Amino acid sequence: MSSSSLTRRSALLAGAGLAGAAMLQSREATAAPSGRGWDRSYSGGPDRAASPPAEPDRDYRPTMTPGGATAPWKVVDGVKVYHLVAEEVEHEFAPDMKARCWGYNGRVHGPTIEAVEGDRVRVYVTNRLSAPTTVHWHGIFLPNGMDGVGGLNQRAIAPGETFRYEWTFRQSGTFMYHSHHDEMTQMAMGLMGMIVVHPRKEPADEQVDRDFVIMLGEWKVVPGASKPDPNEMTDFNLLTMNAKAFPGTVPLVCKTGDRVRIRLGNLSAMDHHPIHLHGYYFKVVATDGGRLPRSAQWPETTVLVPTGSTRTVEFVADAPGDWAMHCHMTHHVMNQMGHEIPNMIGVDMGQTEKKARHVVPGYMAMGKDGMGDMAQMGMAIPDNSIPMVGARGPFDYITMGGMFTIVKVRDELPADGSDPGWYVNPPGTVADTATTDELRRDGIVV
Amino acid sequence: MSSSSLTRRSALLAGAGLAGAAMLQSREATAAPSGRGWDRSYSGGPDRAASPPAEPDRDYRPTMTPGGATAPWKVVDGVKVYHLVAEEVEHEFAPDMKARCWGYNGRVHGPTIEAVEGDRVRVYVTNRLSAPTTVHWHGIFLPNGMDGVGGLNQRAIAPGETFRYEWTFRQSGTFMYHSHHDEMTQMAMGLMGMIVVHPRKEPADEQVDRDFVIMLGEWKVVPGASKPDPNEMTDFNLLTMNAKAFPGTVPLVCKTGDRVRIRLGNLSAMDHHPIHLHGYYFKVVATDGGRLPRSAQWPETTVLVPTGSTRTVEFVADAPGDWAMHCHMTHHVMNQMGHEIPNMIGVDMGQTEKKARHVVPGYMAMGKDGMGDMAQMGMAIPDNSIPMVGARGPFDYITMGGMFTIVKVRDELPADGSDPGWYVNPPGTVADTATTDELRRDGIVV
Amino acid sequence: MSSSSLTRRSALLAGAGLAGAAMLQSREATAAPSGRGWDRSYSGGPDRAASPPAEPDRDYRPTMTPGGATAPWKVVDGVKVYHLVAEEVEHEFAPDMKARCWGYNGRVHGPTIEAVEGDRVRVYVTNRLSAPTTVHWHGIFLPNGMDGVGGLNQRAIAPGETFRYEWTFRQSGTFMYHSHHDEMTQMAMGLMGMIVVHPRKEPADEQVDRDFVIMLGEWKVVPGASKPDPNEMTDFNLLTMNAKAFPGTVPLVCKTGDRVRIRLGNLSAMDHHPIHLHGYYFKVVATDGGRLPRSAQWPETTVLVPTGSTRTVEFVADAPGDWAMHCHMTHHVMNQMGHEIPNMIGVDMGQTEKKARHVVPGYMAMGKDGMGDMAQMGMAIPDNSIPMVGARGPFDYITMGGMFTIVKVRDELPADGSDPGWYVNPPGTVADTATTDELRRDGIVV
Repeated sequence: MSSSSLTRRSALLAGAGLAGAAMLQSREATAAPSGRGWDRSYSGGPDRAASPPAEPDRDYRPTMTPGGATAPWKVVDGVKVYHLVAEEVEHEFAPDMKARCWGYNGRVHGPTIEAVEGDRVRVYVTNRLSAPTTVHWHGIFLPNGMDGVGGLNQRAIAPGETFRYEWTFRQSGTFMYHSHHDEMTQMAMGLMGMIVVHPRKEPADEQVDRDFVIMLGEWKVVPGASKPDPNEMTDFNLLTMNAKAFPGTVPLVCKTGDRVRIRLGNLSAMDHHPIHLHGYYFKVVATDGGRLPRSAQWPETTVLVPTGSTRTVEFVADAPGDWAMHCHMTHHVMNQMGHEIPNMIGVDMGQTEKKARHVVPGYMAMGKDGMGDMAQMGMAIPDNSIPMVGARGPFDYITMGGMFTIVKVRDELPADGSDPGWYVNPPGTVADTATTDELRRDGIVV
Repeated sequence: MSSSSLTRRSALLAGAGLAGAAMLQSREATAAPSGRGWDRSYSGGPDRAASPPAEPDRDYRPTMTPGGATAPWKVVDGVKVYHLVAEEVEHEFAPDMKARCWGYNGRVHGPTIEAVEGDRVRVYVTNRLSAPTTVHWHGIFLPNGMDGVGGLNQRAIAPGETFRYEWTFRQSGTFMYHSHHDEMTQMAMGLMGMIVVHPRKEPADEQVDRDFVIMLGEWKVVPGASKPDPNEMTDFNLLTMNAKAFPGTVPLVCKTGDRVRIRLGNLSAMDHHPIHLHGYYFKVVATDGGRLPRSAQWPETTVLVPTGSTRTVEFVADAPGDWAMHCHMTHHVMNQMGHEIPNMIGVDMGQTEKKARHVVPGYMAMGKDGMGDMAQMGMAIPDNSIPMVGARGPFDYITMGGMFTIVKVRDELPADGSDPGWYVNPPGTVADTATTDELRRDGIVV
Repeated sequence: MSSSSLTRRSALLAGAGLAGAAMLQSREATAAPSGRGWDRSYSGGPDRAASPPAEPDRDYRPTMTPGGATAPWKVVDGVKVYHLVAEEVEHEFAPDMKARCWGYNGRVHGPTIEAVEGDRVRVYVTNRLSAPTTVHWHGIFLPNGMDGVGGLNQRAIAPGETFRYEWTFRQSGTFMYHSHHDEMTQMAMGLMGMIVVHPRKEPADEQVDRDFVIMLGEWKVVPGASKPDPNEMTDFNLLTMNAKAFPGTVPLVCKTGDRVRIRLGNLSAMDHHPIHLHGYYFKVVATDGGRLPRSAQWPETTVLVPTGSTRTVEFVADAPGDWAMHCHMTHHVMNQMGHEIPNMIGVDMGQTEKKARHVVPGYMAMGKDGMGDMAQMGMAIPDNSIPMVGARGPFDYITMGGMFTIVKVRDELPADGSDPGWYVNPPGTVADTATTDELRRDGIVV
């Protein structure tokens, strides 16, 4: 094969990796499309020489995946090597709520793959499932045969096999990985994770102090069942951030004044989740298509994260407190069984509870005044299920569940970076009963 | 407590309000995060002195909430005082269609709270419901203890109690308020409203002639039932603008050439509504995160309003006519029962109607040619329900319902600002049957 | 009628078309709203003289609607004349999967109407359906009486009648047309199509080499039924691009280096589809509200297309390969029956299949390892239905269906522009089993 018959895509992979790169760079000028005012490239451009493998803390500030983990890697001959093992995992969504899901490396979702633009990476994928699978690297520029669509770009990885994927990151941003074989089933079972690629040299005015990664997901686990139901299309009952449902979610801890980045990725089966942060606005600064120019960034308090996309938001955490952050679809801040019981607002409970027990033995009907008071009563619920809502908060029971977490901003943090506990409000800054004097002064008649 | 131990957040509230402000302002420089190119603040910045309470017409042009109302207020010692009473309300969605909902001050939704940047406000909330509640001020920068998440930021307001919320508006834009205790139930029952905060001094090129406020909502009221069903997750059958379903909605009346702003807020349980305006394009100029820079504004004819967010659009009403404006999800421009009957396209009706009557006594099956001709037949429908679609229009029956209204643009308006009636089209500008001569000239064979 | 009593809207239509235009132009200055920094017009401005009818290839590069067609037209006295016939159509969604739908001119959806800014157009609409209908021109600036909302802007077109619509295009972009009478029924049956209006003179840096048009749709056709069910609100089972479900979709063929535009329009009943392109990012450059300024364009790999809107994306096809492009909602890349069978992951099949056969005679239960292996088994399915997923691919069975297609980018294309077949990957660039040497070198234990 003569050098001129090499496609620019094949050279790096077919050759010795770094060896072939110099030649490729010299071809860049001619290979670039004549964009006539267009960006030069929409797929990362021609292959480039891999840069030396970047090191955390030296070359980039690592991200944090609250409730999740970052994938380990090692360097072999200048290439970062990762290993994903697809397997069944007993996963805890929240205290006392587990199911047998499909994940990677003993985790649901899989660990966050973190690298730096210019890194060459090799990812081995071992299939320990009972079904064939593949991995698609969502948003990543790579050779067509590494794209991971079963049947179209490769054959599926049979149970027991280990496949090798390999490319050089020619972009930075927030991306995702997931099964692309029998997607509906395998993604519903949990086969997905996040990918973060840092810029080789991040501009000073884009650097942050905290860099969080949150993957949004939705599941149907029938109360008492041992595994998710992949056929569900609409009535999801476990809504998760990094595969945890409140009160199982892990808070985002920040110091007052920190520049904060939150990278949201959504691989829910069907829903586009609107994630709302209390107390702040943020700017939407990037998608899985890359960083938005400043001129195009939208200020928001709620960012809609369409499924199959990522949204990166940034803000300065200048207001201390315990700030809720959650999906704004009201059924998505409920846990199991929130939607499956009759409407009892204003109705006597006696007969209805009997009826409901035919469906969910031992379960209690929704209160005649709603559900706010139910979770805290300690009523009987089926084994391996969680109350519809809640956890004890600093003031009262928190009547939220599912896709809900807390951004904890403090002037001082514990030295070990651990959860600082509940916020202590400055005196006089908490909503409470109005005094008789206040009501009289303001002419309020109640 | 020494002055240096004061947080910047607590000072204004703990102190005498206006009194503490001068001191705070002197601390701004040190309190500001060193953003290195970032905006200085993402939560409104340090507390600032409240400005003198702004007056409508003098300091700002008031908004209008078609089919709704604006909350009254009074000034006490330089503070604007509002009072919300959460209570059960018999609400009319459309003529002959009522349900017992939960609202504020006898209204569903609650009245629009209108103020101006720099105004200090005190909002009393009285709970006359049978369940505990709270109010969250969506998008507003305020002390953490005023944020209204039950359990997390405050204890819930028990039935009979009156709570006091208080802050200074340090931002302008379109925001919302709603219950944040047992959200799924209480929001589905109607506990929500809009907040508009005008800039203290609006730039001339952002001023408008008409400023409309529309809150989008969705409900399930089983035909014949007396109250909404908060457990519904997908099959909503009353889709509303300011809690009214067409033909109950109130049109938006404009004069030709008016600069028009429409502030859309969505607190539907689950849906992101795409609101389409006929005959025009508009620009999306703001979210609940604030005003978009001009460089970032998108032209649209349909704006997607994710639930839990606001979208403000602006245009010049330079084309006279009766222009439809509606959600583009086709089931959301239907009223009750549009979706609950068998598909009869092309089928004989006899047997089916009998079957359907087992479910909805007295009801008629969907016509074999669709539903366009049904509403106008005056067929029997259950008590306290509305036809799937429609109202009499200037030409024919309008086969739309739900989240549908009309923007009426006229060269001349009634002096009292009332509905100008149907548009009178200039001769020759209405689609109608082609003449034989036209068909012959154009070679159309039918 | 004196000239001063003419509205600017009626003159062109009531008069001789081109004849009245000169007079209108002289009125533009006074008719324009005093926007004080605003754009002069949000509805196309005052009527303008029609330009001479533009010719394809000479005045614009025609679009292509893969799997669909472009509407023919002829010029009569300087006006482009089109004819749409609404009628029942036997439509093939995919091989062996047909249903009786409603379309235009024997097609489902209707043909793409293509024109150029400044063209004057006359569209005749003949109703050969059994029900009254209308046509709304979504996003188009036109006289109010041409807007097509049944009852509001015109009377409905009765069966057998032919109506005339007429206007001058005063804008360019991607728009849509659809029934606006008994919308829910008639749109669910298929009455819709795309409209493309080219600029009179396209700026050089906005010109493209390939210009594709894709309309997104969703349908419920019960397996074995002969027609769509318009009452379905959530559980759609045929998800289409240009009314075709994979493997019935037609690929988008490009030459390496081509500048590519894809115009996506969505008139699905209820869903906002997130369309993901593999291997690339693109820029969102336009909506049905018009072209976005460069400063506002977002880079994306997945564009959310809200129903009732269009999104135009552009990229340079500089990476050869077979790249998947599809809706990222996992149930939308499944065909019929994907969602209607019990969850069998890890369960013995015997009893379940018997049970499922009560519902769908002859059908097979979902495999205990998911559904990836089912479609290729040649199992019995009901007449006139399609497997849940798939088609044979170059490597393996492709386990995707529905709203899925392939962007085929090649260095060389067949001279006749036909489908170039499957991509031949350069050696060493396809994910495959890792060798023992590779595993040993990289220290991977499996």
